[in-house]
Amino acid sequence: MLKAGICNTDLELKKGYMRFKGIPGHEFVGLGIEATDSKVVGKRVVGEINLSCGKCEYCLRGMKKHCASRQVLGISNKNGALAEYLTLPLDNLHVVPSSISDIEAVFIEPLAASLEILEQIKIKRKDSVLVLGDGKLGLLIAQVIKLRTPKVFCMGRYKRKLEILKEKEIETHLFGTKIGEKFDIIVEATGNKKGLGEALSLIKPKGKIILKSTFQGEAKVDISKIVVDEIHLIGSRCGPFLRAIEVLRKKQVEVEKMVNGDFPLDRAQEAFAFAQKPGTIKILITP
Amino acid sequence: MLKAGICNTDLELKKGYMRFKGIPGHEFVGLGIEATDSKVVGKRVVGEINLSCGKCEYCLRGMKKHCASRQVLGISNKNGALAEYLTLPLDNLHVVPSSISDIEAVFIEPLAASLEILEQIKIKRKDSVLVLGDGKLGLLIAQVIKLRTPKVFCMGRYKRKLEILKEKEIETHLFGTKIGEKFDIIVEATGNKKGLGEALSLIKPKGKIILKSTFQGEAKVDISKIVVDEIHLIGSRCGPFLRAIEVLRKKQVEVEKMVNGDFPLDRAQEAFAFAQKPGTIKILITP
Repeated sequence: MLKAGICNTDLELKKGYMRFKGIPGHEFVGLGIEATDSKVVGKRVVGEINLSCGKCEYCLRGMKKHCASRQVLGISNKNGALAEYLTLPLDNLHVVPSSISDIEAVFIEPLAASLEILEQIKIKRKDSVLVLGDGKLGLLIAQVIKLRTPKVFCMGRYKRKLEILKEKEIETHLFGTKIGEKFDIIVEATGNKKGLGEALSLIKPKGKIILKSTFQGEAKVDISKIVVDEIHLIGSRCGPFLRAIEVLRKKQVEVEKMVNGDFPLDRAQEAFAFAQKPGTIKILITP
Repeated sequence: MLKAGICNTDLELKKGYMRFKGIPGHEFVGLGIEATDSKVVGKRVVGEINLSCGKCEYCLRGMKKHCASRQVLGISNKNGALAEYLTLPLDNLHVVPSSISDIEAVFIEPLAASLEILEQIKIKRKDSVLVLGDGKLGLLIAQVIKLRTPKVFCMGRYKRKLEILKEKEIETHLFGTKIGEKFDIIVEATGNKKGLGEALSLIKPKGKIILKSTFQGEAKVDISKIVVDEIHLIGSRCGPFLRAIEVLRKKQVEVEKMVNGDFPLDRAQEAFAFAQKPGTIKILITP
């Protein structure tokens, strides 16, 4: 690979999430070295992370990322991108246009995951949307939703992180400040167990909560609140790479300001330690 | 009232749910005694349980049952139906056709709540649906969903309860028996904290879980499973009374077989004790 990112999921894997024991890393840009199709050789490529069997019920229904026996790059049964070389099926690869930098390209995977929300629910211009979390994913999601409605708010822990959104005219709040309103849609991207509780306290009846956080362990949830207010909860994972490439090509979202450090591969342990520090958004690794 | 039912929610109220201190009871049929409109006087009536303000954001958007300052009959700030007399706004009342018995009429409220599911999601004939729970609500829901798809399964604890569904050609399973398949849609109506975990273990990726259980306290939930499999969770509460009356009028669901006892009002305490016994489906109360 040419450049890779450390994701919060990688930090959760270390805690035991998915019981993964291999090489982590699923956000990357690489150079095509060997392939059965010459179109990717010598080109910069990014890769979709789900490797599907093509034969199971879900693959046959076009739900390849939900393949019952899938491998997931750097997450499940497949060594990931924090290495000099990695392999992926040709179908998973997308060539990166020259107008997108290596750093930007590392964000294609999480940006695609953010855009998945727009595939799952219709967001209208009159909808008010709150994004919980100012990690990389929260900051990407807020920007992506801003493409659909002007009424986007982001709640996070760090003023410095939220600054990135202010330039995009996205209203920001620090956790703990009281908001005098409730929201039509909330995206829960805090990465922790308390996020859904916070979302449930701020959602309107019949509102939609998109769940983006994956973490080791279970969360305590007030189920009766979901029932009584007829809330919709929607789990959301990987998304459309081509659309993410398009959004980056058009410079519709800011990503480079999220980078807090770029470590050589042989200092990956140090990079992980840095990524775990409060206030860090994105740490990159370069061979 | 003429006849009322004890609901699982009433049992949860006793445990502290909603911190309700008044007279419980929200499933009933009564006789119109006094009203500003003579159409209900002398008639058998059932009543929708949410009393709305008509002025708040949700009332103005037509979401009256989600009124921000609502009272709920026998559940929140409004004395309920386990009494000789009760009051409700005229708009909440529906006259019961003579072809529906008093016993059947007591089931209109929970039947409407079951039919709410059909208002919330589209169920196609090819969808496989599992209903978790063989309480009154589970048994009603299984029958209602059978109107849309032949592939309905109900999982419960009591053979005797599940017998009611067999006559409707609904396949039943006892909890603990292994089912070798997963479902497109699951309705969680067990009334307890473990129901959602069971549902999550049996739902297909991108499947829908309808949540019907209200109870005191919180449940532990594997959020990551919801995210990774992109599951939809949909809270579901009260439903359309007119549709429920229609379904009963057409004898499309069996309800009378669910009744395990009918107590006089002055023995209500005894009736509650009976309703709490394992295996009881529905206890009625008659003044």
